Amino acid sequence: MIVVMKKEATARQIDEVVKHIESWGAQAHIDRGEALTVIGVIGDKTEILRKPWTSFGGVEKALEVSDPFKKASRKFHPSDSVIEIEGVKIGGGHNCVIAGPCSVDTEEYVVAIAKAVKAAGAQALRGGAFKPRTSPYTFQGSGEDGLKILQTAKQETGLPIVTEVMSVDQIDLIYKYADIIQIGARNAQNFNLLKAIGRLNKPAILKNGIATTAKEHLMSAEYIMSEGLKEVILCLRGTRSYETAFRNSLDVALIPYLQEASHLPVIVDSSHSTGLRSYVSAVAYAGMAAGADGLILEVHPDPKEALSDGEQALLPRDFEFLMKKLANLKAWSQKEWRRFDNEGAK
Amino acid sequence: MIVVMKKEATARQIDEVVKHIESWGAQAHIDRGEALTVIGVIGDKTEILRKPWTSFGGVEKALEVSDPFKKASRKFHPSDSVIEIEGVKIGGGHNCVIAGPCSVDTEEYVVAIAKAVKAAGAQALRGGAFKPRTSPYTFQGSGEDGLKILQTAKQETGLPIVTEVMSVDQIDLIYKYADIIQIGARNAQNFNLLKAIGRLNKPAILKNGIATTAKEHLMSAEYIMSEGLKEVILCLRGTRSYETAFRNSLDVALIPYLQEASHLPVIVDSSHSTGLRSYVSAVAYAGMAAGADGLILEVHPDPKEALSDGEQALLPRDFEFLMKKLANLKAWSQKEWRRFDNEGAK
Amino acid sequence: MIVVMKKEATARQIDEVVKHIESWGAQAHIDRGEALTVIGVIGDKTEILRKPWTSFGGVEKALEVSDPFKKASRKFHPSDSVIEIEGVKIGGGHNCVIAGPCSVDTEEYVVAIAKAVKAAGAQALRGGAFKPRTSPYTFQGSGEDGLKILQTAKQETGLPIVTEVMSVDQIDLIYKYADIIQIGARNAQNFNLLKAIGRLNKPAILKNGIATTAKEHLMSAEYIMSEGLKEVILCLRGTRSYETAFRNSLDVALIPYLQEASHLPVIVDSSHSTGLRSYVSAVAYAGMAAGADGLILEVHPDPKEALSDGEQALLPRDFEFLMKKLANLKAWSQKEWRRFDNEGAK
Amino acid sequence: MIVVMKKEATARQIDEVVKHIESWGAQAHIDRGEALTVIGVIGDKTEILRKPWTSFGGVEKALEVSDPFKKASRKFHPSDSVIEIEGVKIGGGHNCVIAGPCSVDTEEYVVAIAKAVKAAGAQALRGGAFKPRTSPYTFQGSGEDGLKILQTAKQETGLPIVTEVMSVDQIDLIYKYADIIQIGARNAQNFNLLKAIGRLNKPAILKNGIATTAKEHLMSAEYIMSEGLKEVILCLRGTRSYETAFRNSLDVALIPYLQEASHLPVIVDSSHSTGLRSYVSAVAYAGMAAGADGLILEVHPDPKEALSDGEQALLPRDFEFLMKKLANLKAWSQKEWRRFDNEGAK
Repeated sequence: MIVVMKKEATARQIDEVVKHIESWGAQAHIDRGEALTVIGVIGDKTEILRKPWTSFGGVEKALEVSDPFKKASRKFHPSDSVIEIEGVKIGGGHNCVIAGPCSVDTEEYVVAIAKAVKAAGAQALRGGAFKPRTSPYTFQGSGEDGLKILQTAKQETGLPIVTEVMSVDQIDLIYKYADIIQIGARNAQNFNLLKAIGRLNKPAILKNGIATTAKEHLMSAEYIMSEGLKEVILCLRGTRSYETAFRNSLDVALIPYLQEASHLPVIVDSSHSTGLRSYVSAVAYAGMAAGADGLILEVHPDPKEALSDGEQALLPRDFEFLMKKLANLKAWSQKEWRRFDNEGAK
Repeated sequence: MIVVMKKEATARQIDEVVKHIESWGAQAHIDRGEALTVIGVIGDKTEILRKPWTSFGGVEKALEVSDPFKKASRKFHPSDSVIEIEGVKIGGGHNCVIAGPCSVDTEEYVVAIAKAVKAAGAQALRGGAFKPRTSPYTFQGSGEDGLKILQTAKQETGLPIVTEVMSVDQIDLIYKYADIIQIGARNAQNFNLLKAIGRLNKPAILKNGIATTAKEHLMSAEYIMSEGLKEVILCLRGTRSYETAFRNSLDVALIPYLQEASHLPVIVDSSHSTGLRSYVSAVAYAGMAAGADGLILEVHPDPKEALSDGEQALLPRDFEFLMKKLANLKAWSQKEWRRFDNEGAK
Repeated sequence: MIVVMKKEATARQIDEVVKHIESWGAQAHIDRGEALTVIGVIGDKTEILRKPWTSFGGVEKALEVSDPFKKASRKFHPSDSVIEIEGVKIGGGHNCVIAGPCSVDTEEYVVAIAKAVKAAGAQALRGGAFKPRTSPYTFQGSGEDGLKILQTAKQETGLPIVTEVMSVDQIDLIYKYADIIQIGARNAQNFNLLKAIGRLNKPAILKNGIATTAKEHLMSAEYIMSEGLKEVILCLRGTRSYETAFRNSLDVALIPYLQEASHLPVIVDSSHSTGLRSYVSAVAYAGMAAGADGLILEVHPDPKEALSDGEQALLPRDFEFLMKKLANLKAWSQKEWRRFDNEGAK
Repeated sequence: MIVVMKKEATARQIDEVVKHIESWGAQAHIDRGEALTVIGVIGDKTEILRKPWTSFGGVEKALEVSDPFKKASRKFHPSDSVIEIEGVKIGGGHNCVIAGPCSVDTEEYVVAIAKAVKAAGAQALRGGAFKPRTSPYTFQGSGEDGLKILQTAKQETGLPIVTEVMSVDQIDLIYKYADIIQIGARNAQNFNLLKAIGRLNKPAILKNGIATTAKEHLMSAEYIMSEGLKEVILCLRGTRSYETAFRNSLDVALIPYLQEASHLPVIVDSSHSTGLRSYVSAVAYAGMAAGADGLILEVHPDPKEALSDGEQALLPRDFEFLMKKLANLKAWSQKEWRRFDNEGAK
């Protein structure tokens, strides 16, 4: 990082900054220019980035030059992570579509949905047994009964199960039934939960937070990975904005951005980004066109009866329509573009 | 619209609201329910929507039920508008790619870019002679000299010219040279400019504002159209967010949304939404995949020498690469989806 | 709530909506107008608000008329809640200033800060033993050792302790040491944690989430209160915006708004809203001027050595300066204004 | 500014950057560190800040160290600007309250309001003759007739007139009647209008844009000042956010921030920030408590009949109530705090 001193900074103030940098185990490299003095901080100490630099006299600002994430970073892991679960692969050119109801309701519905989405080409089944709802008076999820229904659906179809964990005390239960553990937007910076998931050995899907930046999303992945787990899938579900047409706002530019910053797979949840069935498929399609590694979508045969989020559920026939369209889509490849760019630059 | 009265609203308060509604030339339809009283307001008076409803005693809230735009609305113009300029069509299945430098610099550069983008498949040339810059001390545009350079480029290539007007007093000059007049994000709610453009007879490209919603974008189009002009192209260039990875945030869900709410063509400006050359093409591709009617992109052979916005300019070879990719893209068609949805619903 | 049907809605579609409303245990009151048909839904069923209304044929939109929170609402609890802890009162005209270090570091520092803030007029001591940090590689808190230091500081000064709980599995430990339990911005919608806190019998401070609205803040309070706890203090710490001058953006209009919507006390955390020591006091002062029931501020004698958030810590002398200024402030009283307004309206 | 080179940047790439810097008339100061190479750019060339730095091979990022505004900056004008118009002073310890109707309607109303606000202590009269409305079908202002009514009100009361200009072609007309020319939020980055205002010799009130940052607000002031006008008043009217309780979101931290960054007076428009009469006064009061140099407020005796924005108009008696409260307010003084801070730091 770089510490920029104010024009009027005194030699004593510069010395104090340098002394502190060294006391924290890093090296300070002073460059006294005519117009300003810059102190380069060298040493792999993330802690230093968080020091209260402007509390020091004479400091104008401190600027991060490199990103504070490592295990999630492509710099330290140049090749794509390919995550495999029960024969299904995601990342490194393997696309994966996950579909299912928002909440688990009856066994009949869930099994029917599982069969329908499998027939249409889905490779995993999603379904929530514990639901983060804005109101405490609405349906909070079916709990372990719901997890058992998912298990039945898995037995009937062979689809691995994706389900959400909402707090540290649910981990044992969720671990028993889930093949991939999902962390929702409201828990994207629940750091204790992230660390606890990082100590397990099952892949995790990490949604971005309600208003996180791409770098914060990666830092949350880093929290999980710092505890050991390597298999993290980044999921884009949109962020909050002042636009009222949709539930959230999803910028597809984040897909190639995250894929370049990180080696982790990136999937799109257009059910939650749009919040409206009519636009879920168009955005899913555009996300795959931008090079996403997969999708996670809500499907329900009778949205009027869905226990939550019915407004954004695709009908099974919508999902089938989308999957057929996707079969003929030629996706953008940022890697191909980079190769072309590097060759062209010669 | 609907006016919802408070539970405790008195008969006198309800009467006062009704009396006012009628004095404004509309009809009031009172529904006294057990739990609440609702007053339906019937009559095509946009003015009424803006009345200070909560200034009336006993009013809980007033809710708009229908949208306040008409000429831009698909409800009143069900078929797609197809805009044609010098043989180039946009809208109703006709895609159009507009490309060129951000600012007009030398004739040599501009003519070279025009030839290059035409060879790659562009159908119109963009270039700014007047530039809205955040700082008054940076390059403000080349003025009429720049417009003449664009004219030369048009003579050499036959490409129609898209250029930006920044204020009412520039209209005569811009009108003389432009084939399509562009209104930028910072002027998207400069209502006097919008009305002045609406009195001309040349197509306009209307960018969304820095933080406008989709409905406000359509209301700005309505401003233009209320003066007579029918040929308006909506352009998405992203809106401001807290995400720092990109210059702006662009939600592709807005493409099918605007196309359904309005009959006007919708194009994507991923140069301004991303602000970074590396991601311009991926987002342009995803925008076309989502069904956009076209693109407007910045291209410059030597971005280091560009007079503005060089960081987001594609090289001519990048543009050619993108155009070749687009040739094989099968775009999502929201119309096809609607047809399928309506048939399926039978 | 109100369901607005489309103009073209058929009788069969209206019937289906009505049938569903009744099957959910509520009453439907149909108002067939010339221009539109409105269905009033009567019955105290929050669940109904969340139904997927637009999945029904013929529905234009569904509009909430009343707020979905109850226990937190002033409508059902007209008088101010006054929360008392170890003789300190907050709410209903009793202001309370809570101050202390961001993180608990050494006993020496913490005891010194506690004495200093008490001398200046603080009524409670804040300090974090578990810290939510964006990076897993930065200081994560001192844990139970830190809680013991807070206990010592309490013994020395008599100040009750405010400290943050980060996850359900920390509750027992935090409960043992805290007098008031704080829930941070990143956990503001960690619904399992909220419910678990609601089953305890110690007051809670609930910060708004990173990007929550005022209504969502109140819904999170409702989550706690739905489990039984009545003593909840709402804390405003700003929300995320595109403004880069400060860490967050805090609108003081929320102070009277929350106080009118709810009977719960509202306090201001300008340490986190501004993120910069230079502006913490000005905003704290303005917040109290707007009628806030208290403050929660970070104070540290040597911000350069603070283990976290040193940039926003006040020095003990700054805090003393602020407290002296506050002694002479005449706060705005929205209640006085309402009284005046009601009298004036006669 | 500082250009940070990538670790792997070659000597040739560094040379190319240096060569370009020098060709632009500035000096490059290279600091080749072990971990990274930093190039300091010295020379007062704003243009350089806007160069497409990342288009150069080997550049990691370019960082601005100093602010790009000068005439508006306190660095180059340490003492407060005091603006005087017809004996009324604003800035440098002189507070000024401007009040009046949103739109000018009848002479009777406007004169009555002018008398009422003057009696309560207002020092200037606001009123719009040209109104920026979201819909083209709502009232667009009363034009020159309205300006004449304002003139009459001035003759009756002696209050100087504040009125809004919406476009370059209205300047002559507005100039004839206005004592202070207001530039609204939607024109805050209408750079041609700003420059035209800067060539006049009447004070201007510049509102922040709908989603501008504090620095952009100052850059817009710089646009005006770059043409010669020195008398600019910064007005905070809130920015767009996802909070739905209010029309806009206003962070009072911006008041001391702008006053420190700039020598220009800062006033608060809580009519537009809240959008609701009930909260206008509380926020106005908090803004003055935070040290604002004045207020601009909407007042109307019969908001139900107001031609625009009635929901946010104070009644004359509300305004009087607020003014009496303000008389007893002791405002925060950031200057006093800085003095104390500097003394304390010795």
